[in-house]
Order: sequence, then structure tokens, then C-alpha cells
Amino acid sequence: MMPYFLFIYGVILISIIVIVYLVKYTFSKDKGTDKMQEISNYIKEGAMAFIKRQYKTIAILSVLALILIILCNYFGNSSKTPSEALSLACRTGVAFITGAFCSALSGYIGMYMAVNSNVRAAAGAKKGLNHALKIALNGGAVTGLAVTALSLLGVASLFLIYGGFSGSDALIKEAPSLIVGFGFGASFVALFAQLGGGIYTKAADVGADLVGKVEAGIPEDDPRNPAVIADLVGDNVGDCAGRGADLFESTAAENIGAMILGVALYPIFGWKGILFPLVARAFGILGSIVGIFSVRVKDDKDDPMKALKNGFVITSLINLIALFFIVKYMLNGVLPNNGGNVNYLYLYGCAVAGVLLSYVFVILTDYYTSITHKPVKDIAKSCETGAATNIITGLSVGMQSTALPVIFISICIFVAYQLANLALPNVANAGLYGTAIATMGMLSTCTYILAMDTFGPITDNAGGITEMSGAPEDIRNITDRLDACGNTTKALTKGYAVGSAALATFLLFSAYLDEVKKLLGKPLDSWFSVDIGKPEVFIGGFIGAMVVFLFSSTAIRAVGRAAQYVILEVRRQFKEIKGIMEGTAKPDYANCVDIVTKGALKEMILPGILVVSAPILVGVLLGKEAAGAFLMITTIAGVIMALFLNNGGGAWDNAKKLIELGEHGGKNSEAHKASVVGDTIGDPFKDTAGPSLHVLIKLVSTLTLVFVALFR
Amino acid sequence: MMPYFLFIYGVILISIIVIVYLVKYTFSKDKGTDKMQEISNYIKEGAMAFIKRQYKTIAILSVLALILIILCNYFGNSSKTPSEALSLACRTGVAFITGAFCSALSGYIGMYMAVNSNVRAAAGAKKGLNHALKIALNGGAVTGLAVTALSLLGVASLFLIYGGFSGSDALIKEAPSLIVGFGFGASFVALFAQLGGGIYTKAADVGADLVGKVEAGIPEDDPRNPAVIADLVGDNVGDCAGRGADLFESTAAENIGAMILGVALYPIFGWKGILFPLVARAFGILGSIVGIFSVRVKDDKDDPMKALKNGFVITSLINLIALFFIVKYMLNGVLPNNGGNVNYLYLYGCAVAGVLLSYVFVILTDYYTSITHKPVKDIAKSCETGAATNIITGLSVGMQSTALPVIFISICIFVAYQLANLALPNVANAGLYGTAIATMGMLSTCTYILAMDTFGPITDNAGGITEMSGAPEDIRNITDRLDACGNTTKALTKGYAVGSAALATFLLFSAYLDEVKKLLGKPLDSWFSVDIGKPEVFIGGFIGAMVVFLFSSTAIRAVGRAAQYVILEVRRQFKEIKGIMEGTAKPDYANCVDIVTKGALKEMILPGILVVSAPILVGVLLGKEAAGAFLMITTIAGVIMALFLNNGGGAWDNAKKLIELGEHGGKNSEAHKASVVGDTIGDPFKDTAGPSLHVLIKLVSTLTLVFVALFR
Repeated sequence: MMPYFLFIYGVILISIIVIVYLVKYTFSKDKGTDKMQEISNYIKEGAMAFIKRQYKTIAILSVLALILIILCNYFGNSSKTPSEALSLACRTGVAFITGAFCSALSGYIGMYMAVNSNVRAAAGAKKGLNHALKIALNGGAVTGLAVTALSLLGVASLFLIYGGFSGSDALIKEAPSLIVGFGFGASFVALFAQLGGGIYTKAADVGADLVGKVEAGIPEDDPRNPAVIADLVGDNVGDCAGRGADLFESTAAENIGAMILGVALYPIFGWKGILFPLVARAFGILGSIVGIFSVRVKDDKDDPMKALKNGFVITSLINLIALFFIVKYMLNGVLPNNGGNVNYLYLYGCAVAGVLLSYVFVILTDYYTSITHKPVKDIAKSCETGAATNIITGLSVGMQSTALPVIFISICIFVAYQLANLALPNVANAGLYGTAIATMGMLSTCTYILAMDTFGPITDNAGGITEMSGAPEDIRNITDRLDACGNTTKALTKGYAVGSAALATFLLFSAYLDEVKKLLGKPLDSWFSVDIGKPEVFIGGFIGAMVVFLFSSTAIRAVGRAAQYVILEVRRQFKEIKGIMEGTAKPDYANCVDIVTKGALKEMILPGILVVSAPILVGVLLGKEAAGAFLMITTIAGVIMALFLNNGGGAWDNAKKLIELGEHGGKNSEAHKASVVGDTIGDPFKDTAGPSLHVLIKLVSTLTLVFVALFR
Repeated sequence: MMPYFLFIYGVILISIIVIVYLVKYTFSKDKGTDKMQEISNYIKEGAMAFIKRQYKTIAILSVLALILIILCNYFGNSSKTPSEALSLACRTGVAFITGAFCSALSGYIGMYMAVNSNVRAAAGAKKGLNHALKIALNGGAVTGLAVTALSLLGVASLFLIYGGFSGSDALIKEAPSLIVGFGFGASFVALFAQLGGGIYTKAADVGADLVGKVEAGIPEDDPRNPAVIADLVGDNVGDCAGRGADLFESTAAENIGAMILGVALYPIFGWKGILFPLVARAFGILGSIVGIFSVRVKDDKDDPMKALKNGFVITSLINLIALFFIVKYMLNGVLPNNGGNVNYLYLYGCAVAGVLLSYVFVILTDYYTSITHKPVKDIAKSCETGAATNIITGLSVGMQSTALPVIFISICIFVAYQLANLALPNVANAGLYGTAIATMGMLSTCTYILAMDTFGPITDNAGGITEMSGAPEDIRNITDRLDACGNTTKALTKGYAVGSAALATFLLFSAYLDEVKKLLGKPLDSWFSVDIGKPEVFIGGFIGAMVVFLFSSTAIRAVGRAAQYVILEVRRQFKEIKGIMEGTAKPDYANCVDIVTKGALKEMILPGILVVSAPILVGVLLGKEAAGAFLMITTIAGVIMALFLNNGGGAWDNAKKLIELGEHGGKNSEAHKASVVGDTIGDPFKDTAGPSLHVLIKLVSTLTLVFVALFR
């Protein structure tokens, strides 16, 4: 086992070295004019103030959750002796706190880098597209590396401490289920980070637009608008901190789920089956580093999106090769029934299916949300007949866009399941392990995807800073093109996040069933069915789907309510601070930031509590099987709803962009006005409710795993 | 058995007598001024032309389905001898055609009465509110009675022919599954009737509004608008013919599902357990007749909605009493395990739960969609900040409105299940029969509900006719009030239809499991599990939920596309027929009607085929268990989506009404313009996609039952 862990920790060390190099690289760059720095400092202060206060709230909620976990695991395990139960409760508690801390830390790192890279990317635009692109992508890469390396470090270390070191078969097999708390801690923090950040970013955006653009008639990102800084802060706290925590959670949850499934195949693969996910992840980080460094544009005319896509292809190819060798050397063994060898090529097929799925998701998201394809063009055209037809077309495109992703996830799960059954004929749980391998394949490019994602808000901010600082036209052109490219990468990441969430939950669901079997004293290769024909199980599923709708509703409404605070504050400043409109007096940016912060944090509590309490209630009242149905159908409905919200929102956004580029009458035409309505509706869809649903799905899985002992 | 059938046929006879009386009553009334009659004749011709052409399309599709059914049932049953298989195939085929015919007939009757009552209700308004109310409600009552009596006649007669007459236990027990084809025929026609009608009505509405109100600036229902007649025709074909077929289907499907469950309890209740649903339905018709005749308002100031609600209460009370005696005298027997008697009071409790659920649904729908409660007021208020906030609030109210109905359906299923298990301890399938009794309770008021529903489009048309014929202010006031009341009843019926669809599917799902057991040669009291933890079953469910989104998307888009045809035609007429705007030339109403007809029928094919083919594909490719999951999760997602679409759409509609009554700036204010956008978006939600989803849910259940022999 030792060489594998040396390799894993080696990769973590390499990540740290690369992070240090990238940070140094970024901080060595020019910070631009005084004006730029001033704006950037406002953003930095606002973002830090938000995250400080948000983390305080999350800390309090985490302590409450910790107490609940310890109590539940201590008193829930009636079959265990008090000292065994206490030890279990403590280890789960420690894992929870570690997961929560690491998740918060990765969010913080992501945001810290973003607020420091934005101004440098803006200043770098002076030296050309490639320079600015490099700065923005390197800033994003720090987040990507930090998130995945931290997740790997946490899971690997807890595994070692909780049994991996012991060398005892029994302890090694027990360790993965003890790390579940890590995943729960990560998803708990991620939920509030994504919800709070998502509400913040859109409340500020909607508030700034409604009073600034509509009432006062000043353009977007105009420094006279008191909410403009809050708006720019929002991009960082929603997209960087939020998505960082989201994908931290994905990688952690998938590692843990796959490791638990590896336990079921212990007789064949031994500890290598449990360690496989971690090694695959480590190689994924290496591949992504190569991919990130390979990104460059030839000249200022080149398409930055093409360069980013090339990097993605390189990362994927490296991973495809690496996975072949990992599967070959780790997943071999003797079949128990006929003494033959495991056919590793079939298992490699599972990994290939996963890599292909990540590709397909990127292509499909691109098709439904980019301005070059039919869906967005249809929406833009429907703006000609007004806001109503725009919304109808957008909603219907969003709903339609759920079909192909669902079919491809289904195919991937099915193919991986069948291939693994071919590789391991008549072995219980073999098929599920195949889906675990596919998940590892899909997530092997995670570091790169995250780097691309964080690239989005950095370029968005860079665009805002150049605009507000009155930089010359040619620089603005460069940052505008990077900004448009960032919008696309953000949309693509969301598609990827949904797909990976679906696979992760399928793994965690299997892990949940394993836990239930253990609690009921059944052998792991027996079958525990979640029979939706039983009324209480049906009801569990019914409520699960409903929670997805109710959660989306509260998340969307929360944005509206928080935006109200912003609107009132901006109006107050326009009225009370004389000279804002003439440019002779400065608006009070900080107060605006403060008010959105308070509003967003207040509004995130209700949906957060809903999601945490609903599965526990279902489990306690209706039993373990109903909780299983709740989990599965929340996943099904959540994935579809997230696709609908993300793609619908993204498509409206780009339909507006298409019109602003001159189609259907161009800027300030009636069609443009109609498209603005769609964009505004899409904002809480794609940046608050949709991304929060990814987290919800995974939170429900880890939560049911942690609290299963409480269930009837 | 004889006396029970005499009673059932007696009730059918009474219904026919009442129908004849009501038809005579309606036709004896004044048809109003020449102008009114002229408009009414246009509507009549348009509606009949539509239904003729629609039925032709449906007939072709039905013949295709019939061939498929016969082939599938003939070749699918490999375990049967050719002659047995042929007999089964033929009987299912005959049942299918009978169901399809009866469904089409009830749609036709409903529409025929509606287009003849509308002008008489308009003319009757001269004699006061009570008179107009009576005419409109009696017209609706004909539909209600015709639909439920026809459904009862069809199911009872097929049961008699297929085995009930024989007196042989084996044949009696086999008969209910042979009638499934009747339910499938009914849902097949209902799907296309509701889809085609729903697309027609909203395409005409949106088209008329966009060109008439927005482009030409003429008011709603203005005779100069070439699409105005098509708009009025739409109310009849969508709400009358569509909803008539929908609820015909509900009653048929629920009767059949409950009868199949009754077979499982044959050892205890004998044939009475199978006949119970039919007897309960017959009593329900009698109770509704009393309820309908009890509706009256004191004077012109009285609230017509209050009078209609009173009638509903009376109907419910009569049914509560009748159900007590039916349960007491039919559902008794000796328990097999301990020789004790069945405790019928518990079973009566199931029926009470069902009646209460129908109440709760009416109350909840009213809360979320009526202008007197917070949700609609919130939406109206959000119109002040523009269309975007209106849409966001409306969508979020719609999503939120799914929560309580889901919880109450869950409670009802759970309570009924537990009560029946108490009444019949240790009896397999007892709990499911309890949910069947609850369903009978909920549907006992169906005739009355349908009368209230068809009342809606009649008053809507009456309003349009008075408006177009330039009737005096006081008459318009009366028809306006009836129209507002009709909007509410339409919304309430939709809530009721969703609730009943959920219960019906739960029954049919159990019936599906029974069929699967029979096909696999397992005893009926064994258990066939639909284990969502298996990948192919999970995939079946995943695709099931996705189909709901995809279907909604295609239905919504179909409206948009069909509306385009209308818009082009209206523009053409305005341009080519000189003098329309001055009132010197008549627009070509008939051509407009014709174009919407063609457009709607063309657009209904794609979503229709999607819904029919998806479950068959899942069953054939992934197997019986996956088809079961598809069925259950389509139900879950479909019910929630339908609630979202219906309530969201209804709430937007009434938010606009609230503003038109003078709140938030009143008519022609900015808030009003914003509210019109919401109303337009809500139209295809609540009148096309939502109601079609009710039918979809039931269609999938009957379809899987009919084609189960084909599944892997």
C-alpha cells in the first residue's frame, strides 16, 4: 500500500508547488492604474467581508450539525457497546469537521485568488489577449488545484488514520464508511456556501440593474451605481467560493462512495479496489496540470474558447492513457467462481464511458446555451414578439434540454454496469463498481474544469474593472472577449457538475444500501431492495421530488427578497447623497455590500434547513427504505430540474447577448427589452437555484448515510 | 349480483332521463338577439368543424393503436395457446375501441351542450343572475352526467360480457383485467383530445391577443378581430371536450384499477369487492344530481361561487352517507386467518379520507390561485417592478404550490393503507384495496365537479357573446361575474383532476404489478418488487421523469408554433380585407378557425407519439420492473409538474384580474402590462401542458397494463 500513498502524497506536494508557482506568477504581475486598484480593493474588501460573515454563520450551523451527528451516532447504534458507539460517533464527528473545514478553506482560496487575479487580468489586457488569458486561467488553476488536492488530502489521510495504516483487513474495510462524515461536512458547507453566494450574487445583480439601468438610466458597471461593487463581489462569492465548495464536495463524495463500493469487492481486488479512486484522482490532477499549462492563443485574433477547449482535450487524453494503466495494474485479481482472471479491458471500458460522458455533457451544454446553435437563436427570434414569447420559448428550451443529458447518463450507467458484470461475472456488486470506475473517469478532468470555471468570474470582474476605470477601447475589447468566453466556461462547468452529481449520487445510493445491510446484519453481497410499490416508499419518493420543487421555489424567492433590500438602499443613496449622479460625490459601496451580505445570509437559512430536515424526517417517520426512495427520486428530479434551470438561464443570457450583437434589431430595440426580461428571470435560475440543486443532491446522499442509524 | 346490476343500470337510466330533461330545459330557453345568435352560430360551426377533423385524426391513430394491441397481445402471450391468445387479443381490442368511442362521445356531448348553452346563458342574463347561472350549470351538468354515466355503462357492461354474467368464479376474476383495454382506449383518445384542444384554445387566444390587442390596438373579444371566434371556439374544444375526455378517463381507469385490486381480495369479499367501485360510482351520480339541482342564488347580488360551493358540500355529504352503507353492506366477510369479521368502519375511514382529500384539493387550489389570498396578491404586487419580477414570483409560487398537495396525497394514501390493514389484518393487498376505497371516495363527487368545470367555458363564451353583440352594461355585469366564477371553477377542477390522477395511477400501478405476477406465474398474494436500486430500474425511472419535462416542453412549444399560423393569418386579413377596422367589412372568421384547427392537430402528433412510445420502449428494452419504475416516477413527476403548471398559470391569470380590478395602478398601468406578460405565459401552462399531463399520467398506466406482455 505504501508506494501508492507515496504517489498520492507526492501528487499533493506537486500540486502545492504548482500552486505556489502560480500564486507567485500572478502576484508578480502589474496591478494596473490607481483607478483599477481602487476598484479592485473595493471588491476585495466586500468579498472578504461577505465570506467572513458567511463562514461565521456556517460555523454556527456546523456546530449544531456536529452535535446532532454525535448524538445520533452515539444513541442510534443500539447494537454497539457504549464505547464502540462513542468511538464511532467521535470519528464521524471528526471527519465531519475536517470535511467542513477543508470545504470552507477551498472556497476561501478560490475567492482569494479570484479577487487578486481580476485586476491583474484587467491590467494584463494591455499586453495582449494571451497575457490576460494566462493570468485569468492561472488564477483559476489555483482554485482547481487547491480544491482537488485538499479533497484528496482529506480523504486519503482520514483513510490512513481510520484503518488504512493498521494493515488489518477488517479495519481497512471499515475505514471508508467512517469517512462518510467528511463528505457530509463538505456538502453541508457547500450547500450554504452555494446558496448564500448564489443569493448574494443575483440579489446584487438584479438590484443594481433594476434601480441603476431601469430607474436611473445609467449603464451597467457604472461607478455611480452604489450597488455596482456588490454586483462584482457577487461574481466572486457565487461562482468562485460557491462552485469551489460544490466541486470539492463532488470529488470527496465520489471518492468515498467508490471506496465503499470497493469494500464489497475486497475478496477480489483487496485494498487496491478501495485505493483505486484516490490513485485515479491523483493522476487526474497531474493530467490537468499539463492541460492548464498547454493553454495559449497564437495572437489577439485567436479564439480563447478554442484554446481552453484544446486544453480540455489534452487533459482528457492524458487521463485516458493514465486510466488504462491504473486499471490494468490495480484492478486485477482472481475470480472467485471459476478461478479465471479479471478482464481489465472491460473495466477500462467503464472508465472510457465516464470520460466520454464528461465530453458529451460539455457538448450538450454548449449546444443548448451557446449563441451559435439553434436553441438560443430560437429564443432570440422569439424576443421579436415580446417578453412573453421569449419566456415561453426559453422555458420550453430549458425543459427540452433535460432529455439528452438524462439519456446519456442512463447509457453511461447502463454500459458501465454491464461491462463490469462482464469483467466480473457472477460477482455481487460488480456492476455498481463499474459505475464507480466510470465516475472516476468522468471526474478525472475535474481540476481542469474547475480552473476553467473560476476563470469565468475572474474575467467577468476584469471586464467590470476595465469598464469602471474608463480604460481605452482596445483593452475593453480584449476583456469583453474574455468575459464572453468566461460565460461559456461557467455554463459548461454547470453541466459537468450536474452530470457528476448524478453519478456521485448513484454511487452514494449504493453505499447507503450497503450501510443499511450492515445495520440490519445482512451480508454485503445480499440485496436490500427499495421497492417503490410499497406505499411508504412511494411516499418517500413523492416527497423527495416535491422537495426539489419547494427548494427551487424558496431559493428563487430568496433572491427576489434580498434584491428588495438592495433596491431600497440604492434608492436611499441616490436620494440622500447629493452629487452621485453628477459624479461629484461617491456612493457608499460598502454599505450596499453589507446590506446584500446580511440579506443573502438571512435568506439562505430557510431553504438550507428544509433540505437538511426533509430526508431525516422521511427516514425517521417512514423508514430506511423510504429514505432510499427519497434519495433516489430527489436525485432524479434534482438533476432534471438543475439541467432545466441551468440551461434555460444560460440560454436566455446568451439570447440577450445575441441581440446585443446586432441581431433582431440590436441594442435598445423592443426585442432587446424583451430579452432583458428573460435574462433577469434566468439569473436566479442558473446562478442560485440550479447550482444549489447540485449540492442538494449530494447533501441528501451523504446526509442519509450519516444519519441512517436514526431511521426506522 | 343481479340486484346490484339492476341498481347500476337503474342509475344510468335515471341519468339519461335527467340528461333529456336538462337538454329540453336548455333548448326551451331564449336564444337572444339576432346578433347573439349569429355569433353563437359562428362558434358552433367552428367547434364542430374542429371536432370533426380532430376525431378523424384520432380515429386513424386509434386504428393504428388497435392493430398494435391485437398483434402484441396475440404474439406476446407465448404461454397461451393460439386460440386463447386470439380471444384475449380480440377482447382487449374490443374493450379498447369501446373505450375510445365512449370517450370521444362524451367529449362530443360536452361540446355540443356547451355551444348551445352559451348563447342561452347570455340571453338569460337579461332575466337575472339566477336564471343565467341555472342555464350555464345545467348545460355543464349534461356533460358531467353523460361522462360519468357512459363510463359506468361501459365498464359495467364489459364486465358482464367478459365474465360477470357467467357466474363462474374464475371468469369473474379474470374479467377486470380484460377491461383494461377500455381504460387505455379512453386515455388514448383523452390524450389527443386534451392536447389538440389545449393547443387550439391557447394558440387562438395568444394569436388573437398578440395581433389584435398589441398590434392593432383593439380590445379583447372585439368582432373586428378575425381570430376572435377561434378564441371562443377554443374554450369549448379545450375545456369542454378536453376535460370531459380527461375525467371520463379518470373514472374509467379508477373503476378498473379498483376492480382488479378487488380480485386479489376475492377470498374475503367475493364478487362484491369487485363490484364495489361501480356501486359507489352509481351512488355518486345520484348524489351529484341532487347537488346540481340544489344550486341557486337568492338575488342578483349573491355570490354565484358560494352557491356552487354549497352544491359541492351537499353532494359530498350525500356521498359520505351513501358510502357508509355501501361499505357496510358490500365490504364484509370473514377473515381467513382468525375467522373474525372484517371491521367495515376502518374501511369506511378510507372512503372518508378520499372525500376529505377532494375537499383539501379544492381548498388548496383556491388558496394558490384566487385573488383573495396571499400568493396571487404577492404576484400582483411584484408586477409593480416589471414583467421579470412578476414571472419570477409566479414561477416560485407555482413551484411552492406543489408542496401541500403532495403531502396531503401522501397522507391520504398512507392513512387508507393503514386503515385497510387494520380492517383486514395479515391479508395480502389489503392496504392497496384501502387506497382503492379512498379513490372511490374522492371520485364520488366527480359528476358534480365536471358540471362545475363545463360551467366555466359556457360562462366564458356567454361573456364573449354579450361583449361582441354589444349588450347593455347590466347584462355584461352579470355575465362578467359568472365568467370570473367560471375561471375559479375551472382552476378547482384542475386541482381535483390532478389529485384523482395521482390516486388512479397508484391503483393502476398495483394492478400492473398484479398483471406482472400473473405473467410470471406467481400467486397474487406474493410480492413483485420494483427495486429502484437496480440500474435498469433507476434508468427507467430517470427517463420517466425526463419524459414529463420533455412532454411539457413540446406541448408548450406547440402552442407557440400554432399561434404563429394565427398571427400570420390575422395580419393577412387586416391587410387584404379592406374595411375590417372601420367595421364596414367582415373578417373571415371561418378561415381563421380552419387554420388553428389544422395547426393544433398537426402539433399534437409529436408529443402524443412521445408519450405512447416512451413507456413501451422502456418496457421492451429494460424490462417489466423498469417499466414499473417509469410508471411510478412519471406519476410523481407528472403530478408535481401539473400542479406547478396549473397553479402557476392560474395565479398569473388572477394576478392580472386583481390589477384590472384597480390594485397596483389598475388597467393600462405599467403593472398591468407586466401582469399581461405573466398571463400569456400562464396560458399554455394551465390550459395545454398541465391538463395534458393529467391524461399522460393515466395513459402511461393503462398503456403499460395493455402492453405488459411485450416487456422483457
